[in-house]
Formats: sequence, structure tokens, C-alpha cells
Amino acid sequence: MASFRGFRGNDAFGSEAWKALCRVREAAPLIQCITNFVSMDIMANTVLAAGASPAMVHAIEEIAEFTALANAVCINVGTLSPEWIFAMKAAASRANDLKKPWVLDPVGVGATTFRTEKCLELIALRPVVIRGNASEIIAAIGASVEPTRGVDSTLPSKDALEAAKELARASQSIVAVTGAVDLVTDGKRVLGVSNGVALMQRITATGCAVTALIAAFVAVHPGRPLEAAAFALALFGLAGEIGMEKASGPASLRVHLLDALHSLDEVTVISRIKIAQI
Amino acid sequence: MASFRGFRGNDAFGSEAWKALCRVREAAPLIQCITNFVSMDIMANTVLAAGASPAMVHAIEEIAEFTALANAVCINVGTLSPEWIFAMKAAASRANDLKKPWVLDPVGVGATTFRTEKCLELIALRPVVIRGNASEIIAAIGASVEPTRGVDSTLPSKDALEAAKELARASQSIVAVTGAVDLVTDGKRVLGVSNGVALMQRITATGCAVTALIAAFVAVHPGRPLEAAAFALALFGLAGEIGMEKASGPASLRVHLLDALHSLDEVTVISRIKIAQI
Amino acid sequence: MASFRGFRGNDAFGSEAWKALCRVREAAPLIQCITNFVSMDIMANTVLAAGASPAMVHAIEEIAEFTALANAVCINVGTLSPEWIFAMKAAASRANDLKKPWVLDPVGVGATTFRTEKCLELIALRPVVIRGNASEIIAAIGASVEPTRGVDSTLPSKDALEAAKELARASQSIVAVTGAVDLVTDGKRVLGVSNGVALMQRITATGCAVTALIAAFVAVHPGRPLEAAAFALALFGLAGEIGMEKASGPASLRVHLLDALHSLDEVTVISRIKIAQI
Repeated sequence: MASFRGFRGNDAFGSEAWKALCRVREAAPLIQCITNFVSMDIMANTVLAAGASPAMVHAIEEIAEFTALANAVCINVGTLSPEWIFAMKAAASRANDLKKPWVLDPVGVGATTFRTEKCLELIALRPVVIRGNASEIIAAIGASVEPTRGVDSTLPSKDALEAAKELARASQSIVAVTGAVDLVTDGKRVLGVSNGVALMQRITATGCAVTALIAAFVAVHPGRPLEAAAFALALFGLAGEIGMEKASGPASLRVHLLDALHSLDEVTVISRIKIAQI
Repeated sequence: MASFRGFRGNDAFGSEAWKALCRVREAAPLIQCITNFVSMDIMANTVLAAGASPAMVHAIEEIAEFTALANAVCINVGTLSPEWIFAMKAAASRANDLKKPWVLDPVGVGATTFRTEKCLELIALRPVVIRGNASEIIAAIGASVEPTRGVDSTLPSKDALEAAKELARASQSIVAVTGAVDLVTDGKRVLGVSNGVALMQRITATGCAVTALIAAFVAVHPGRPLEAAAFALALFGLAGEIGMEKASGPASLRVHLLDALHSLDEVTVISRIKIAQI
Repeated sequence: MASFRGFRGNDAFGSEAWKALCRVREAAPLIQCITNFVSMDIMANTVLAAGASPAMVHAIEEIAEFTALANAVCINVGTLSPEWIFAMKAAASRANDLKKPWVLDPVGVGATTFRTEKCLELIALRPVVIRGNASEIIAAIGASVEPTRGVDSTLPSKDALEAAKELARASQSIVAVTGAVDLVTDGKRVLGVSNGVALMQRITATGCAVTALIAAFVAVHPGRPLEAAAFALALFGLAGEIGMEKASGPASLRVHLLDALHSLDEVTVISRIKIAQI
């Protein structure tokens, strides 16, 4: 993609991303996560490594009060079942009522009728950000594609750019398509993020984890969800790049990525963040 | 706290803690854990690293038989929902009937009405040990504090000492308040434990994991739950200190902490355990 | 066991195991896992490290469609509850209808009446492979043994060889008994696998993880489940041996094992696989 030139050395985005991370560390927003069982450990540890505070709370009996305490909500349909969907909708609605941001990870949308229906119902509740891989974003907009194959995308992110824009306009959400290059759009503007390493795809639930990180960044950047999402994606990807310097495979990458996320400093962030307007 | 002088070089506690760990390794007690989804991996691995045997069993259909096989039960309300609470109560009651110890981790008590109610109902079933952070212990005794903010405490442990004593007397349980210094009390005596490193708070579910470790120690030290809880807290904290020597962040600390817990030896334990009567 | 001579240097099995791993990496089969909460993280990461694609999907509303997308199904009863058993049976039946292989991990069978009943009902649905430790396999065949103690076996695998053969003949499944030596049988032939290190037992859910790996290997080796199961066990054990070279305890072993599984190469596999006909 020719339009990706200029990814390096964009000091404006690097400086803003650093300030955004500082705000997360200072405010330590409480992120309520209603997420799949596979992702819970890495998601909580990712949110903690960034300086925010995760809480996995899904009982319908607690939603009204707990969502009121939270600064943002992350909803992920990975291991969905009807009772959890009920809690997800309650939390999304409660967040909306309280003007708190919530983000959606429509894992595997398109794989089954039930999953697609439930994801569309959640999208109708207007998440501030929707993050998925290319297959998921295309399925979410209902474009005719081959069914999503499990939870791993078979397409590059750029193939989903038009679907992402359309979904963003239809849902009035920011849409982030993750892949080798991450694309974030509000339906008009598009930011591209090219931090990250391919091996991160061999760690389960990294996509889920970064969605919770997006929630943490959106929580402390009201009114700027497009940039907040891009910063979260770039910083997570950068942590992966730094982790890769010490990693010997996917499991050590996971360890070093989280260590790096915890230790990110100003010089590194400013010099290595790769975000570009597309 | 002036009363914490004498934390170093208390050979009596060090020697006893070492013997306690040896008993866990030899007896390999079976610890039934009914716990939150986030903690399951690290809790099971912590119990295994100490030489005990974890089993996550929560189906109501199995409680009567399985709790009879277990040597102790660890109940943690982290990701609670009504059906799980039902199983927790059944396991607690069954353990009581069989004179087996059970320990309670009232995660986030005070955060919501439902959670507080359920925790109080569990406390009424008389756990042998209750472990929480300062905010949780204060909430459990019903002291008027600002609502618990998620699952991470906003207060140092010493602020909860009076609440812990009161809760211990009211519930007839040992109460452990964890923080930079851990305080363990039966309502009269107080043991302080100052092993541990601050970065452990950036690993999700370390508090949950150490509660299961307390269950393992209590299982093989009938009649001495105050000391057993202090030993578990001190040894876990010491493993964190040793892990910290090799760690570069929270994720590598988690790895090295568990490795260190598995490898703790007599000289290290005796020379580095920091427990003091307060 | 005298019959284990010849474990080293069996180039035929080594070469076949390498080809089997290559087929998994190339085909990247989609493995639907309905498994216990403790195992989800390590199971998904194990399947990914081997080059396959895991998906944890258990909602009854999705089974019919999702199992049709999957290349194999892994069912593990670890943290069972009635609703999950219902989904397990639906997925097993659906897999059978579609001639897709499914494998069963009857965790803790024998520990409680409910668990034993449900495992026997699942076995009656004819999994292609059943994997358990010695205590579980003996309990599954209903031999009169002392009740399974939690989820960790108290017996060496060879004590379960006759039970394994009997179970294999009765269920028409391949039965794998794991331990210091793994035994895999169809009721007549027996393959022994002696890769692995003892410390792997101190990592929670390694047994669960390798069962999912067996599913991945069976998925791409139709008609050869005996060998496929042995290859998966040997390669996982070999990854443990390689991981052990860098490990300082169970938590670092887990990291290095998964890294090693991801990086296994032809020379290593051919020279170090230890499989023998018994």
C-alpha cells in the first residue's frame, strides 16, 4: 500500500501516544471486562501492564452497580452462551445510559448464525469501538464472504477497509481491523498502525487483550476514540516488537511483550510508534 | 510501624515455615478450588509449585463426594454468578460437616450489593481463613468506607487492622489482610509478614493464588491456621522476592515467582522469611 | 519394562512423526475445544504452537454449525457442569454424523459418581481417542480401584495397560495412558512413547493440552489415529525435553516447552523421538 509511506518518524503521533499512555498510568481506569474464558488471564495482565485496573464481572445481578463504578467496559463474545449475552447487553446499555464508553470484540462473527445475530444485536447498542480481524469485520457488515473460519482471519486487513468504513458509518462506531497493518476508521478518516510482529498471532487472545487495552485508552480520552484506539494498538504492537528482541517463540514472546508494555518509556514510544493518516 | 522491628532474623518463624512447606510437599494435600475464571491457571500452578494438588470442581452434582476427597477447599467469589454461589455454599457446608478446613477470598466485597450479600452469607458459614486486601476486609466488616473500587485495594493493610480483628472475632475465622505488609489475626494475636515485592500487584490473581496456598498450608496444619496462613503468605512473598532478582517486568516475575516457589530450600527460607508478632 | 528397549534411534517413527507435524503445520486444522476453564489458555497456546487453530466454542446454539466447520473436536470434562455436558454430547454426536474425529479427556473419571456417569456416556459416543492417566483409564473401564484422587494419577501408566486394552476393545477407541511412559493402544497393538520430563506434571493442564494436540494430529491423519496419537504425545514430550534444557522450574518449563513446540525441526524430531512398538 503506497499510502503507508511515512509510517516512520511521525513524531506527532509518537508524542501523543506517549501522553495517552501516561494518562492511562495516572488515571488507572477501572475496565470491566465481560470476556471469553480463554482470554481472561492475558487480558487482565495486559490491562495491568498498561497501568489500568481490570475487573471481570459478568453477573447480571451486579451489572447496574458495577458498570457504574467502571470507567469503560470491554465486551468480547469469544466463548459466548445465552446468559452471558444477556449480561453483555445489560452492561452495554448501562454504559450507554451513564455515558461511559464500551468496546466490542465480535470474535468469530460470521462463523455461526447464533454468533452473528448476537454480534449484530450488540453492534446495534453502539459500541464506541469495534475491533476485529478482516474476516470478522467483513462478516459484521454482512458482505458476502466465505464463512469465518474459526477465530483466525484468513484475509489481510486492507481487504476489509471498505467494510470497516461502511460498518463505522452504519454503527457510528470507530472500527479497528487488526492484521499485519491495523486500520482504524470512523468511516471517513483512516489511521494505519504498523507496529507489531507476526508471531503475536501465535499467542492466543492477543486480539482480545488489545481490545481491552483500547477500552483503557478510550476511557481516559473522551471524545477521541479514533486516536485512542490507534494508540492502544500501536503501543501493544510496539511492546510486541520489543518483546520479540528477547523471545525464542510464542510463549516467551507473550512474557516479554507484557514486560515491555509495563516498561515502555518516552524515548522508545516517540521514536518507534508507527501511525500514519491514510 | 514501629512494631515491625524485628522482622529480620526471626529464626523460629523461618524454621517453622520451612517445616510447614516440607509437610505440604510430603502430604501433597488435595485442594478443591471453586474460584474465578481469571485465577484458575495461576492458582492451579501455584498450588502445584508448592507441592500440593489442585482440583477445580464446582458442579453441585459432585460437591458431596468431591469435597469428601479433598483435604481443604478454597472458595473465591471473583467472577461470581448465582449458580456458582450455590456450589460454594454447598462445598463450605460439606467441608464443615466433615471438619475439613476451607478458606474464603471475598474478592471485591463492597463493590456491589449482590457481592457483599453473598460474601457475608459465605462468611456466616465460618471459613477457617478469610483473606482480602484492606478495602475488602473493611467492607466485609461493614465499616463505612467508600465502595470498593474494583478488585484492587486503595488502602494500606494497616488501615484495616482493627477491621480485621473485629471480623476475626465476629466470624471466628483467621483474617489475613494482604498488602505491602500482610497482617494475619485471630482477633487477638497479630502476625505481620513483610515478604513480597510491589510488582506482584501487577500480576493478575496473585491474591487469589496465595489464598489457595493458604488452603494447602491449613490442610496439613490442623489447629494452627494463624501460623499456617502466615507461612503461606511469607513463602509466596519470598518466592516473589527471589523471582524479582531475575524479572524484567510483571510477566517474567510471574514465571520466576512460580519457579522459585517450586525450588525453595531450607537455607533460603530460614534466612529470608520475615514474620513478626505484632 | 524390558520391552521398552529400542526406544532410541527408531528412525522410522521419527521420520513419520516429522511428516505428521508438517501436515499439521500445512493444513492448520481447526480444532473445536470444549474444555475446562483451567486448561483453556495452555490448550489454545499448545494448538497454536503446533501450527493448528483452536476455537473454544461450547454454546449449544452453535454446535451444529460450528462443529461442521471444525476439523476435529476435543472434549475435556475437567470443570464439568450439566449444561456443558449437554454441549459436549451434542458436539460429539455432530462430529460422528459428519465423520469428523473427536477425542475425549475424561479428567478425574472415578472421582465422583456424576463424573464417572458422564464420562461413560461420552465414551459410549465413541471418541476416536481417549487420553487419561493410569487412574483415569482404570476407572473408565470400571476396574475396582481406589477412587481417583483428584486429577493427578497415583499409578504408573503400565499398571493401566490391560485396562487400556480392554477399554480400547470395548469402546472401539484408541486409548492413550500418559505417564513417565505413554502407552497408546487400539486393543491389540501398543505403542510406547518415552519422551517427556517429570516436571511437566507440575504444570497444570499439560495433559489437557496434549489431548487437544492429539485432536490436531488425528484431524490430518484420517484412518491412523493410533500413530497420530503417539506422534502428538512424543512431540509434546520432546518439546518438554528441549524446554527443560532452559527451564529453572515449572513456570519457565511451560514457556520453553511451548517455544520449543513451535520451533521443532526435522533433525531434532528424527533424532530424538522415542516411540516403540511394545
